[in-house]
Amino acid sequence: MITHVAFDADDTLWHNETLFTLSQERFRALLAAYADLATIDARLYEVETRNLSIFGYGIKGFTLSMIETAIELTEGRIDGHAIHTIIGYAREMVAAPIQLLDHAETVVRALAERYQLLIITKGDLLDQESKIARSGLAELFAGIEIVSNKDAATYRRVLARHGITPASFVMVGNALRSDILPVRAIGARAVHVPYVLTWAHEHADAEPARDGYAQIADLSELPELLTRWQEATL
Amino acid sequence: MITHVAFDADDTLWHNETLFTLSQERFRALLAAYADLATIDARLYEVETRNLSIFGYGIKGFTLSMIETAIELTEGRIDGHAIHTIIGYAREMVAAPIQLLDHAETVVRALAERYQLLIITKGDLLDQESKIARSGLAELFAGIEIVSNKDAATYRRVLARHGITPASFVMVGNALRSDILPVRAIGARAVHVPYVLTWAHEHADAEPARDGYAQIADLSELPELLTRWQEATL
Repeated sequence: MITHVAFDADDTLWHNETLFTLSQERFRALLAAYADLATIDARLYEVETRNLSIFGYGIKGFTLSMIETAIELTEGRIDGHAIHTIIGYAREMVAAPIQLLDHAETVVRALAERYQLLIITKGDLLDQESKIARSGLAELFAGIEIVSNKDAATYRRVLARHGITPASFVMVGNALRSDILPVRAIGARAVHVPYVLTWAHEHADAEPARDGYAQIADLSELPELLTRWQEATL
Repeated sequence: MITHVAFDADDTLWHNETLFTLSQERFRALLAAYADLATIDARLYEVETRNLSIFGYGIKGFTLSMIETAIELTEGRIDGHAIHTIIGYAREMVAAPIQLLDHAETVVRALAERYQLLIITKGDLLDQESKIARSGLAELFAGIEIVSNKDAATYRRVLARHGITPASFVMVGNALRSDILPVRAIGARAVHVPYVLTWAHEHADAEPARDGYAQIADLSELPELLTRWQEATL
């Protein structure tokens, strides 16, 4: 019996990666005099990977990585104004209006009448809280969990905190590595809604087990899928 | 009847402001050729204040503010190597060993046998989790709440989540504005343990009401104070 449906937020309920992609495009243009696009992208990815365990996910960590990349790529020749411009990208990203994904609002409203809904998301605390508040959907969720990492232990802890059993829990998200595989690992169900752009760090090698797993094209397919699962377990 | 005692973390259980102060001293030295100490400090404080609602509390926000201050103070003349040095401060701050305050360990261990203990702290999610894990005290706490802001609504939400009444809750912390005044506002008790250094943003103008409020010199005075309160309410 499914009682709780949890959603990832970024790129599941609203667009997020597009913001990072846009900043990265502007970053490339800013450094165009120093290196070609592929070199800039590769170097930024390298710096981001190195910084992930230190600065975490989110806009601030990404910005520090852009600044470091700019300095390293230019061997320190980048000037203060250009770095100020990069910090300006961060300020714009934080303030960017929330763009809900197609069907997100109608589907969340419909499901809120039948299930307890949660948001389980990682990223900067302040930034995620602000986005949830600005999304207009906050009051439809019984719980909001902003976590630093989404592994099996995280999901176990969240389920325990809310008194949810794995059998009654479904996670919905765009990232195999964060939203699907660890959820399957604790024996709960997971629905994969791929986003057009998927951040390079979020690619996972393994394919999840088929049972209790489904991939859908967009959120409009979710209510019927949940009903089918619900009927199958009755 | 007191059942739950919650602690702030930074500068209540372990030293934190000292790390920021140390970075700020190094930052002053880095910019010494461009401005005098008072100007650097005033400008950094101004930039931090401006950025607080955008980048939040914590090392990453502080680092972005140092970088901005350096660029503004030097009118863009600061070079990439100096900015790289500033990002290096951030990396060192994140990795700095946890230095518990005097009596923190013994007092927390003793109180854990009599009360349910919580940590309620603000700051970067990843950074705070890492510090709690490295403190060696994590398993003594029944709950850990990392929040973006500590106002009355935050405390109400945390108490509701744990099923705690204000009358059975005591908050212990170093910051009047974050740890004492909002807790008194919801009718719970609060113990102020001033830290030697208090961040300029944390100064509060008002003095808290005397009832249900106490100031102690260090954590060693806490167990007896709680016992006195406990006896008074019996």
